[in-house]
Amino acid sequence: MAQPQVSYVDTTLKKNSFLDCKRHIVWEHTLLYQLELSKKTGRYDAFRLQWHPSYSDPPDHWPVPNHLFWDSDVGKWIEAACYFLHDGKNSVIENAIHELVEMIRSAQKEDGYLNIHFSVVAPKEPFTNLEHLHELYNAGHLIEAAVAHHQVFKNDRLLEPLVKYVKLIAAKIGPEPGQIHGYPGHPEIEIALIRLYQVTKNPEHLALAQYFIEERGATRDGEHFFAAEAKARGWHPFQRPSYYPRPQSFWYNQTHKPILEQDSVEGHSVRAMYLLTAVAALDTYRVDQRQEYRDALVRLWDNMVAKKMYVNGGVGAIADWEGFSIDYFLPQGTDEGGCYAETCAAIGVMMLAERMLQIDLNSKYSDIMELCLFNSVLCCMSTDGKRFTYVNQLASSEGKPARFEPWFTCACCPPSLSRTLGFLTGYLRTTNIDHDANTAHISVHIPTAGTTTLNVNSKTITLDTESDYPLSGTIDCTLHAPNDISTTLAIRIPSWASSNFTISPLPSPLRIEKGYLRLPPSYLLSSPTFTLSLPMPPRFLAPHPATNQHTLTLARGPMVYCLEDVDNPWVRDHFKTLRLDGGQMRVKFAGQGGSVAQEQGEEEGVVAPNGERVGELTFVPFYFRGNREGRGQMRVGIGRV
Amino acid sequence: MAQPQVSYVDTTLKKNSFLDCKRHIVWEHTLLYQLELSKKTGRYDAFRLQWHPSYSDPPDHWPVPNHLFWDSDVGKWIEAACYFLHDGKNSVIENAIHELVEMIRSAQKEDGYLNIHFSVVAPKEPFTNLEHLHELYNAGHLIEAAVAHHQVFKNDRLLEPLVKYVKLIAAKIGPEPGQIHGYPGHPEIEIALIRLYQVTKNPEHLALAQYFIEERGATRDGEHFFAAEAKARGWHPFQRPSYYPRPQSFWYNQTHKPILEQDSVEGHSVRAMYLLTAVAALDTYRVDQRQEYRDALVRLWDNMVAKKMYVNGGVGAIADWEGFSIDYFLPQGTDEGGCYAETCAAIGVMMLAERMLQIDLNSKYSDIMELCLFNSVLCCMSTDGKRFTYVNQLASSEGKPARFEPWFTCACCPPSLSRTLGFLTGYLRTTNIDHDANTAHISVHIPTAGTTTLNVNSKTITLDTESDYPLSGTIDCTLHAPNDISTTLAIRIPSWASSNFTISPLPSPLRIEKGYLRLPPSYLLSSPTFTLSLPMPPRFLAPHPATNQHTLTLARGPMVYCLEDVDNPWVRDHFKTLRLDGGQMRVKFAGQGGSVAQEQGEEEGVVAPNGERVGELTFVPFYFRGNREGRGQMRVGIGRV
Repeated sequence: MAQPQVSYVDTTLKKNSFLDCKRHIVWEHTLLYQLELSKKTGRYDAFRLQWHPSYSDPPDHWPVPNHLFWDSDVGKWIEAACYFLHDGKNSVIENAIHELVEMIRSAQKEDGYLNIHFSVVAPKEPFTNLEHLHELYNAGHLIEAAVAHHQVFKNDRLLEPLVKYVKLIAAKIGPEPGQIHGYPGHPEIEIALIRLYQVTKNPEHLALAQYFIEERGATRDGEHFFAAEAKARGWHPFQRPSYYPRPQSFWYNQTHKPILEQDSVEGHSVRAMYLLTAVAALDTYRVDQRQEYRDALVRLWDNMVAKKMYVNGGVGAIADWEGFSIDYFLPQGTDEGGCYAETCAAIGVMMLAERMLQIDLNSKYSDIMELCLFNSVLCCMSTDGKRFTYVNQLASSEGKPARFEPWFTCACCPPSLSRTLGFLTGYLRTTNIDHDANTAHISVHIPTAGTTTLNVNSKTITLDTESDYPLSGTIDCTLHAPNDISTTLAIRIPSWASSNFTISPLPSPLRIEKGYLRLPPSYLLSSPTFTLSLPMPPRFLAPHPATNQHTLTLARGPMVYCLEDVDNPWVRDHFKTLRLDGGQMRVKFAGQGGSVAQEQGEEEGVVAPNGERVGELTFVPFYFRGNREGRGQMRVGIGRV
Repeated sequence: MAQPQVSYVDTTLKKNSFLDCKRHIVWEHTLLYQLELSKKTGRYDAFRLQWHPSYSDPPDHWPVPNHLFWDSDVGKWIEAACYFLHDGKNSVIENAIHELVEMIRSAQKEDGYLNIHFSVVAPKEPFTNLEHLHELYNAGHLIEAAVAHHQVFKNDRLLEPLVKYVKLIAAKIGPEPGQIHGYPGHPEIEIALIRLYQVTKNPEHLALAQYFIEERGATRDGEHFFAAEAKARGWHPFQRPSYYPRPQSFWYNQTHKPILEQDSVEGHSVRAMYLLTAVAALDTYRVDQRQEYRDALVRLWDNMVAKKMYVNGGVGAIADWEGFSIDYFLPQGTDEGGCYAETCAAIGVMMLAERMLQIDLNSKYSDIMELCLFNSVLCCMSTDGKRFTYVNQLASSEGKPARFEPWFTCACCPPSLSRTLGFLTGYLRTTNIDHDANTAHISVHIPTAGTTTLNVNSKTITLDTESDYPLSGTIDCTLHAPNDISTTLAIRIPSWASSNFTISPLPSPLRIEKGYLRLPPSYLLSSPTFTLSLPMPPRFLAPHPATNQHTLTLARGPMVYCLEDVDNPWVRDHFKTLRLDGGQMRVKFAGQGGSVAQEQGEEEGVVAPNGERVGELTFVPFYFRGNREGRGQMRVGIGRV
């Protein structure tokens, strides 16, 4: 059960294929751009532990200093870069990594402590505000960087200080008397510790992750940990950050009750996704309570997907706490009640979906993983790889145009996207090998063009797919496998193609389990080359009626489309009063390929904006919105009569 | 320009007419019931300034002690009772008023200070928390009680201590150096002071009201008054009540900027309505800046009615701050994003509408006043007059059934309803007399059955109307006026009848100005008896598309209807998935009259809940919902296909 950050090396994308182009932009431009920005803003040198003028800035979100995330920004950049260095060389990037690693090493205190803010700005306050101050979150991202660094450079220069830091954290926090019985406000270190354990095999690393997960939301001596921590800091009970609408809004960080007691996904979306990803990742190693935690995972996943997810995979309706609202409350934009759909949250959904697939190979997870990837994740970076979005509303409004930004004060999203694209192929396919049984299995979750190579007892198996998926749905597959290795494939049939897909030659019987087409050795031996066809007629999606969104959204294959003013220049009101009157729609798509013009879908139909009939609407894929000069007017769900 | 609390004595309702029945319930039951509860809860004796055990209760809404409103509860009860005593006798009520008045007198401090909480519980804290602690709000309601008491008992027993208290307040707060440059968090005293001025003619009373209005939201030395006040109390900048979602959420009490700069109605709905009512009431007396304040009133009224008001006149979508949301955000219930529509807020809309009519006789105000009265105000009391609602959602949900309650900890709404019904006729008609010119004018805003009597130079004019309005729309009017007094009438033509009303005999020309049918002396002399007919075919109302409410609401005349489970017992989901499929609706009404069964409208049509076709739906007027045993499932806006 390798994690995708490890297994991604088994699969390479076909050169110039759709996803390869996206990934290549990061390698060619984004990493260097982010490095440059890192230097310009002070992040790069921050581990030198010198005072930076911005440390005096009043915080945008009290009590969180604007620079509080710098450790994680650096960690995420290192981690992202390491994934790309697996298949390329770049001395600028490599030198930067080495310099950063040495800076991080030099920033570590004697006792192992390692944090920029608490070393330079608030040296007396380590471990006094786990609720709000991202101390363990930062540690988590540095650990993940260390794991990735270790993987590509095969040395311990970064792993060593992080292992030492973890030892300090494990001494400070835990169930024993005298320890802090706490956990981080922002989960992340849990994921990191599980990944660290996979490298170190040190059971303490796993135990600490498990402690954080299981202690979370517990009440000790009648008191919530964060309430006790705030009291110890001398905070008034009604003193709280803006993101806590009420005192003790502990649902914000999913600590309102233990995970096992939670029935609905609540609060800050990224925190929720990171927490559940950790719970799912821990599943591999735990035996006790496994079923209860699995039940909780499924319960919370189902709640999210059925009742709290936008049509394009975005999650989080409420800007104030960057997170979930009540069931079915999914307005499209700020002026309609809210829409946040943070980039990192969509990435978090992919992370969780991937871990859930390891527990249960079920297309209900990979359908959503794919939806997020092609819509609410890829939408977050401009085609030149140098501009980003943090919030991804489904409709623009006055004051909130659909636009990319060069950077953010809280710059969590851009490096998260870089690292996601870094190990992207880990999401697309997973493999299982049993050397003893001489068997190999490949699960194809997202059937893009690529090659997966496995070695079973020194013999090579290759699954080669040619396709311009997601632009069209024809996937030509060739399996090269020695006859004596029993090889099986499971290929996801997307829910949107479940009624019209074809495969040639046709397996007999045609076996589909939980949304995956199962191809046994008998079929693959006789048909090592086969073609899967996933027809992509345009279709309209309607949200659940309880959302009070009386809209239709154009989709084709895994892609969700939107309208932009660039193509529909008559728009003045963000397409708010546009109404599709149904019945007479014809949709044609201009073409296929990687270029901008060809990525546009074009819809011709009869529609009535403000009573005036417009003959033609042109839609573009949602991920592509914002890439051309325009007024930033955009909408995904179009009203209907 | 008498206020309705004064002018109401000019008009009496026809015995057993629709509104007379509602009003009579208060006289017969509600006042005594509220008196009894007042005694049971401790409110009645609170002005004895003894400790009450409930003073130690932790506040439901910190920092507001639960008993903080007791002064106003007592004041509102006295005020309400006084209006009814104008046309009736009841020794229990009268004795209670006298006893309360003596208690209030005895509670006054030497310097004039008069407040329960700040005398008994927090004697060191007067005037230190105008933002949150309702000190001036309580004073306002006591002043209003004193004015009503003076009017009916013709003595100064209650007026005297209140005048003394106002003198103290005017010394403490004002523009001079050494004074507090502040204003109340909850407006009310402004209205009260203007009413007091009408009795005392003391210009200081008017000046204080004007100061509160004009100082509100100003910044002095770069600081907001409430920010400075909080700092002086030693509050942390992020310490704030639950109803401030963010620090300094001053829009909550409409102090985010001066009134003249406000473009949209924001925050706590009752506060907004009381504030604007005071601004409109002050208009009569001011010359300077009159137009600017009128412009602000119209701007804020229009914003509220066009973009922030429910189809039944309810206002306030957000429970957390009991108030307004963004434009067009009007979900019907808690599980759809929120709906509050507090009783007091609807009463406040009526108060504001009434004052706006004095500035501009325009049916845009009286249409809304009527909508509120027959729907969002009358809905607040059960038919037995002993149960009430505080929140009036347009759709019930699990955990939030549509039900009456016997009382509330914060009991602002029930006595507000009592006093509204007390001087109700003041809302229905207004009069203008010019003794010098020998002219009389009566404006009929809501054409219910009643008699208005005026005296012009010792001669009597009577306008007599017979009708069972609002149950049907035929209104027979008879004017008794001496020939030598030039008498005119203006009768509002409701917007829903503007295209199909008739009047017989027909005036020539038929003159309608701003929604009011103008009847000149020439017509009235020849036709002192005439019949106005306002046909009431059932109609369906659709909310503005920007609300994302794809619903229809049945209405008939001024009444808005809803579905209840009592009549539609198959319902399981609060009518959430019920869909009207249009085209084939037939609506019939069972009958007319005052009784329960006859008040029900019955709709027969073809509808499809959950795909299953139901032949018949029975609607009841919204104001009537909750009066029968049921499960509390109710909905106003019904989804459509």
